[in-house]
Amino acid sequence: MTTLVLKSWRQRLGEWIESPPVRHLITGLILLNAIVLGVETSATAKEAAGGLLALLNSVILAVFVAEILIKLTAFGPRFFRSGWNLFDFLIVGLSLAPTSGQLAILRSLRILRVLRLLSTVKRLRMLVESLMHSLPGIGWTAALLLMMFYIFGVMGTELFGEAFPEWFGTLGASIYTLFQIMTLESWSMGIARPVIEQFPHAWIFFVPFILISSFMVLNLFIAIIVNATQEVHDMELREERERENQRAHDERQEMLDLLRTMEK
Amino acid sequence: MTTLVLKSWRQRLGEWIESPPVRHLITGLILLNAIVLGVETSATAKEAAGGLLALLNSVILAVFVAEILIKLTAFGPRFFRSGWNLFDFLIVGLSLAPTSGQLAILRSLRILRVLRLLSTVKRLRMLVESLMHSLPGIGWTAALLLMMFYIFGVMGTELFGEAFPEWFGTLGASIYTLFQIMTLESWSMGIARPVIEQFPHAWIFFVPFILISSFMVLNLFIAIIVNATQEVHDMELREERERENQRAHDERQEMLDLLRTMEK
Amino acid sequence: MTTLVLKSWRQRLGEWIESPPVRHLITGLILLNAIVLGVETSATAKEAAGGLLALLNSVILAVFVAEILIKLTAFGPRFFRSGWNLFDFLIVGLSLAPTSGQLAILRSLRILRVLRLLSTVKRLRMLVESLMHSLPGIGWTAALLLMMFYIFGVMGTELFGEAFPEWFGTLGASIYTLFQIMTLESWSMGIARPVIEQFPHAWIFFVPFILISSFMVLNLFIAIIVNATQEVHDMELREERERENQRAHDERQEMLDLLRTMEK
Amino acid sequence: MTTLVLKSWRQRLGEWIESPPVRHLITGLILLNAIVLGVETSATAKEAAGGLLALLNSVILAVFVAEILIKLTAFGPRFFRSGWNLFDFLIVGLSLAPTSGQLAILRSLRILRVLRLLSTVKRLRMLVESLMHSLPGIGWTAALLLMMFYIFGVMGTELFGEAFPEWFGTLGASIYTLFQIMTLESWSMGIARPVIEQFPHAWIFFVPFILISSFMVLNLFIAIIVNATQEVHDMELREERERENQRAHDERQEMLDLLRTMEK
Repeated sequence: MTTLVLKSWRQRLGEWIESPPVRHLITGLILLNAIVLGVETSATAKEAAGGLLALLNSVILAVFVAEILIKLTAFGPRFFRSGWNLFDFLIVGLSLAPTSGQLAILRSLRILRVLRLLSTVKRLRMLVESLMHSLPGIGWTAALLLMMFYIFGVMGTELFGEAFPEWFGTLGASIYTLFQIMTLESWSMGIARPVIEQFPHAWIFFVPFILISSFMVLNLFIAIIVNATQEVHDMELREERERENQRAHDERQEMLDLLRTMEK
Repeated sequence: MTTLVLKSWRQRLGEWIESPPVRHLITGLILLNAIVLGVETSATAKEAAGGLLALLNSVILAVFVAEILIKLTAFGPRFFRSGWNLFDFLIVGLSLAPTSGQLAILRSLRILRVLRLLSTVKRLRMLVESLMHSLPGIGWTAALLLMMFYIFGVMGTELFGEAFPEWFGTLGASIYTLFQIMTLESWSMGIARPVIEQFPHAWIFFVPFILISSFMVLNLFIAIIVNATQEVHDMELREERERENQRAHDERQEMLDLLRTMEK
Repeated sequence: MTTLVLKSWRQRLGEWIESPPVRHLITGLILLNAIVLGVETSATAKEAAGGLLALLNSVILAVFVAEILIKLTAFGPRFFRSGWNLFDFLIVGLSLAPTSGQLAILRSLRILRVLRLLSTVKRLRMLVESLMHSLPGIGWTAALLLMMFYIFGVMGTELFGEAFPEWFGTLGASIYTLFQIMTLESWSMGIARPVIEQFPHAWIFFVPFILISSFMVLNLFIAIIVNATQEVHDMELREERERENQRAHDERQEMLDLLRTMEK
Repeated sequence: MTTLVLKSWRQRLGEWIESPPVRHLITGLILLNAIVLGVETSATAKEAAGGLLALLNSVILAVFVAEILIKLTAFGPRFFRSGWNLFDFLIVGLSLAPTSGQLAILRSLRILRVLRLLSTVKRLRMLVESLMHSLPGIGWTAALLLMMFYIFGVMGTELFGEAFPEWFGTLGASIYTLFQIMTLESWSMGIARPVIEQFPHAWIFFVPFILISSFMVLNLFIAIIVNATQEVHDMELREERERENQRAHDERQEMLDLLRTMEK
């Protein structure tokens, strides 16, 4: 008897916390928090109203923590089955850390709370989910691209590491430099020409890397585009065609049935 | 009786101002105005024929003002129901301001009158309208991109603001810098490498921002491409297919009717 | 009688000059000429074999001139009806000029003879023709883009011309600078940041220009892609579908005819 | 009798070397080798465990050589019929060279062994094969692009070679510079503006080159995209449509047969 009452009390709590008014309030608080954190970046605003901003921050964070605790109470271990709940839990958990530390890096992570909009605004949630759907199709092409980065990274470090320690000193530095070259930023005037001045044949390293990485990025793009357009485009077309094919088939079957009965 | 005469006089005025010869004249004056304003940028041309150019400018502006006044008289409040009329009204209104001021910024806005070609040349009007049609589909992806800019902007200001005030000093400066990084212009040699020299882990800020923003811009592009190609491509195909399906359906129906009458 | 013989002689000449062996020889000479002109760019090669290279150049040019003269004799005024013949005529005519002048610019135009490959190699000819086909669809979008360049060019000259004469001194300089900005090359670190330092609100000029021009270039690309893919893709699909629709229609007609005869 | 036993012994050897467990072992060794070669780029790691890393390298290389020898024994001349076997043979052969030389360039080629993953991991093999399939369609467009490079390269060398030997001194330097310009890297601030300062009309060289090369690269991309999407997209659609068309045709044929028998 007691467990039944308890259950129903938890259920009602769960329904309340996920009801539209409460969700709209949370969304509003996230937006307010975004503005407060944006205003805080201004030194003059911080001097003028630093106390108020800090207070607002604390209050909003308290509401977020309360929300998570209520959801944990209401849903129990089921709470963690949803990826979005886990996402909210991590974001809010991350926000609790900076209050204890003094490091700028931890303070700056508070703005990640704005990412909670992805879980509370339904349209953004759907968009992120559909963007995620286009990622698995990239898998092997991305693996191939990473392999090229690793091969050229090791080669670059061995060949140019001593002469250009800033760009190719370590494997990490080389891979960062290759990423820059892949984006075509200052690849020639900034990197390749100085290297070629010392190693005249170095263009054999840079030009093929650009051609191969561009070709692979293009193929990554094609994979995403094909996935994206097929989903949007084909679904309706295919359904319409299937409906039409079915209608034609039904009509022909009817004729055949009539003809067969007539023949007898 | 008087209102009827008045109405008909207004109608005739409206028809005249929108008749092809008048519209062609206005288009010609816009092009002439564009040339005059282009020539005026040359100091030598201005010295040689500055008076003539100023006169031409004033005359053409007077015609544009007259055109708007005539349309206002002819159509009354209905004038403002068309977006293109409102567009013309604002462009010409903007052009009236600089004559009273001396500021270069206001003078330079006169060239915006050339934008009136968008409303007077039918093909450009259709093109702009079709470009506009592809924008709503972008909505939420653009919102997501703006959110990323805001989050990375606040983080960048808090992390690098003190050390690099020129690039990350204020939230606005940070967002401008992020826009530059998104276009991949000097992102590494110009911005990221100097920052990484001081904050060795700053690549965790820049590389994910480039990957995420590129992925989102790609998705913006896909959204526009899908919209654009579907409209152009599917319309005719779909109509043709529906016509064919209808023909097949009609023929099968005729057969069925024949068979049913025969069976009786 | 004489005209008949003359005609037939001309016909045979025309057939001979356009026969595969002669066309292959011409193609070979164009490639040889390309190599000769490439080798001539090397100072050492020119010193060693300058006389031979000049001789080869003259001989090949003489063959080209002879080919054109033979075609003119054989086809008469019909020669100029083909765009490709006109193209060859202009290219070879251009090549005759440099021998009389000493200017580097005229000498350097000799390499344009290699463009004759476009008319003699059938596959390149078809490719160029198909590339040309995708251009008309761009028309109005390109016009819109040019209009934006003109508007921003005049504004840029008026606003920044005095302070930055190198980039915005004249309308031509402004349009070149805007072209550079459209390609995103050094747009921020190179141009926009120095300008913004002096005119703090200049980002209102640069950022919208980048957004608008990128959007339009994307639309230019879409127009080309849609044209290109439709041609390649749809042709076969459409033909196949029409064939299938025709077969279905014929079979249904036969059934209807049979049924109608039976009903009587 | 002896040849039969020998055959069967070779067959069993061939089956064993291509069995999943052996292939997985080889794949694992390639990955281990990649890690070893990556760790070797770090000077501190090399000092601490240089001997071990060199030993691992030698052992893994010995296994690769043994694998090739076993395959050669098992398959005989048939071994070289597969492009992938030839690929493995060359990669491993290349790896044997550096042990005898001291040149950094030869040592650095050892990392190419990682490319063997392309032949041992089935999914990567399929991906590379499908990427290769999209290349033939590019042929003539690539030839056209190379032709433009050659023409602009020769012209650039003749026009700007003396004034800017670093960028346009030789035909090779010019083509490298044009490749840089095609990627839009520093094309204006780095190359074109200094050249234009000396040759005011040089923009006639640079701007058309950018427009033409961009247009051609776009067409290269379209060719790849069309190939890629057609393969993925059309195959299933076409099969489905053909199946449906066949069903409709069969049903109509049955009706016609019935009608014809009834008419008699």
